[in-house]
Amino acid sequence: MSKITRQQCIEMDLKDPLSSYRKHFSLPENTCYLNGNSLGVRPIAAKQRVQDVVEREWGEDLIRSWNTNDWIHLPRRLGDKISTIIGAQAGEVIVADSTSVNLFKLAAAAIKLNPGRRKIITEPGNFPTDLYILQGLKNFLGDQVELVVCPVDEIPDAIDEDTALVVLTHVHYKTGRMLDMSDMTSRAHNKGALILWDLSHSAGAVPVKLNDVNADLAIGCGYKYLNGGPGAPAFLYVAKRHQSTLEQPLSGWFGHSNAFAMLDDYQPAPGIERTLCGTTSVIGASVLEVGVDIMANADMAQIRKKSIAMADLFIELVESYCDGFGFTLASPKDAAIRGSQVSLIHPQGFAIMQALIARNIIGDYRAPDILRFGFTPLYLRYVDIWDCVDALANIMSEESWNSEEFKKLTRVT
Amino acid sequence: MSKITRQQCIEMDLKDPLSSYRKHFSLPENTCYLNGNSLGVRPIAAKQRVQDVVEREWGEDLIRSWNTNDWIHLPRRLGDKISTIIGAQAGEVIVADSTSVNLFKLAAAAIKLNPGRRKIITEPGNFPTDLYILQGLKNFLGDQVELVVCPVDEIPDAIDEDTALVVLTHVHYKTGRMLDMSDMTSRAHNKGALILWDLSHSAGAVPVKLNDVNADLAIGCGYKYLNGGPGAPAFLYVAKRHQSTLEQPLSGWFGHSNAFAMLDDYQPAPGIERTLCGTTSVIGASVLEVGVDIMANADMAQIRKKSIAMADLFIELVESYCDGFGFTLASPKDAAIRGSQVSLIHPQGFAIMQALIARNIIGDYRAPDILRFGFTPLYLRYVDIWDCVDALANIMSEESWNSEEFKKLTRVT
Repeated sequence: MSKITRQQCIEMDLKDPLSSYRKHFSLPENTCYLNGNSLGVRPIAAKQRVQDVVEREWGEDLIRSWNTNDWIHLPRRLGDKISTIIGAQAGEVIVADSTSVNLFKLAAAAIKLNPGRRKIITEPGNFPTDLYILQGLKNFLGDQVELVVCPVDEIPDAIDEDTALVVLTHVHYKTGRMLDMSDMTSRAHNKGALILWDLSHSAGAVPVKLNDVNADLAIGCGYKYLNGGPGAPAFLYVAKRHQSTLEQPLSGWFGHSNAFAMLDDYQPAPGIERTLCGTTSVIGASVLEVGVDIMANADMAQIRKKSIAMADLFIELVESYCDGFGFTLASPKDAAIRGSQVSLIHPQGFAIMQALIARNIIGDYRAPDILRFGFTPLYLRYVDIWDCVDALANIMSEESWNSEEFKKLTRVT
Repeated sequence: MSKITRQQCIEMDLKDPLSSYRKHFSLPENTCYLNGNSLGVRPIAAKQRVQDVVEREWGEDLIRSWNTNDWIHLPRRLGDKISTIIGAQAGEVIVADSTSVNLFKLAAAAIKLNPGRRKIITEPGNFPTDLYILQGLKNFLGDQVELVVCPVDEIPDAIDEDTALVVLTHVHYKTGRMLDMSDMTSRAHNKGALILWDLSHSAGAVPVKLNDVNADLAIGCGYKYLNGGPGAPAFLYVAKRHQSTLEQPLSGWFGHSNAFAMLDDYQPAPGIERTLCGTTSVIGASVLEVGVDIMANADMAQIRKKSIAMADLFIELVESYCDGFGFTLASPKDAAIRGSQVSLIHPQGFAIMQALIARNIIGDYRAPDILRFGFTPLYLRYVDIWDCVDALANIMSEESWNSEEFKKLTRVT
């Protein structure tokens, strides 16, 4: 079979129905940015928006902005927009804090929602902060919680009558493997367990239908596929049916039913707002809104179709141009169980990624040997994929990956 | 005694050693902003800084910024700068999350630091989120915690051998009353209790000497006197002596000793970094740094001197120009026990504040009857104080505060 050429990729771009979205993003010059799964790029409109929130809303309107610029409803307004991206209803999603903090709130709440049950089940190799937060919760609550860390394929059998909550990341951060959210949710529910989905690598990347699969709880990240900016506020989801009974321990004033009455006793807000804690991160949330607005307008079926086509193209190009260089595919070859990234394993993964970055091909590295490449259909072109693999093939041809020089390279972050 | 004139205030401004700081801030035109105790104004340099972090650091450098723009050390770098404002050492303060989230972390940690003790003592009427967070912690931990809410003057006697932690706000948000941090800390320590100070209305407003008074823990707000922008990240302090044994439940990946090793097991960072949780709010923290840099350069003794002079002037002007209008002073008249604000009580407080705001005199209102006026010596002039009281006197002379129209006015926030 003949190898796919750069020209063929350019022709694919010409037929791309999403090609008009690229102009909404500021992309660094002469760079292939295959790291939108880690930090999404800057929407063009973010520049104007952040100026406006800093200079006018803060600088001129000052404290009055809570009303005049509706800062007070920013978490909810933004949550409602995100709800359309992840298959939830208005009033089920809100923007707040970080993914880690939101996981703590909802996992703690789940233990109370499911009384008499002690187990929280998750998988080893889950995104580290998910494991760390659950460990912190377990240490904190002591005998009230048993944390079970069990290979994901064994989780269906591990869920039992003592299981309060299953915590899984929908798309694995390292391998890109995508779990069957519907099946796993049903299996949890069949045993009376709740399920919490981490959508950090899903929201804006793959179709998510929280309501259709009857998901209980979810969290997700604002700065990856939603292009919300570095350290953007995160979001969380609570199914309507759990909202009136959900109690979360981080009961700060923004979660109060009447925060500005300044009462001594906490009374949770009736809806999703009870998951809020402190004062809204207004600047960060305002910038996030720009990215969310773009994503909420795009057609997720088209995004998914292009994402799969890009990943398939990448795999095919690696197989044809990088044969014999020692790469192993870490991601599923079956697109049906793969998110919007492809990871390769190579023992010199760190050094290879450094060499790619030196050529302005930006992917990332995850210890000990994973090279990750994220595919973001709104701003990437098929030709970017070709250029990436071309650079990879050139690097592997030119360099000696067993040399002392490369062995000495150590990770920077 | 003759009343102080506007001209006399102008002359006071001419002699003000802090007058050169005003040019560092963007102040809305024709406005007296006496609400820096709620939301500080925008530093001029924040405009350039936020453009740089959004357009260059995020937009161009993207993920590489964790190293090239040192995002990774932003919480600590900023914490070290704040430490100089509150009398702590480098490595004792870090920027993270919100004040509410930080209180949860440290109060939960204190229970573990002081094993065998159950009581957390605080005062009624404390800033609501402090009470709500402690209630959430208590509900969450059940019998491990007893929450004692006790009038502040009775707290010294209430601290006993079962007291794990005393949580107090140094300067009261409503009355501006300032507690004796040294005395209260000693009293807690004498009974083996720890103490946590909320510095939200102190940091940048009054001298704080955390090390000198031997304080254990503290939290504080970035968007008030530090001028960090709406919803700016907050900070927290842990005395060096507690850092190696402090365990906080929100053990997210940024608190790990080696976050990017992506290990499955949480291992807390050795120092103050163990109090971090999720990914740094980069844009918000970068903007906060601008305000902190100005404050860290200013002379706190001069700030305190001018703050007292402004508050004394305000009280004297209210007494001389607003006599008979029904105002009562809610703040201590003794400057030694008063922060950098003065609050007045009036049964029509909400309507009066609305009338002031309509005249571009921005203070704020706290239910049910408090008018708050904050004094921020870096950007306010004595003549602003005169203009504020002049407007207040005019309003009270012109309007009928018992009319149906004013009784109908309800709070907006």
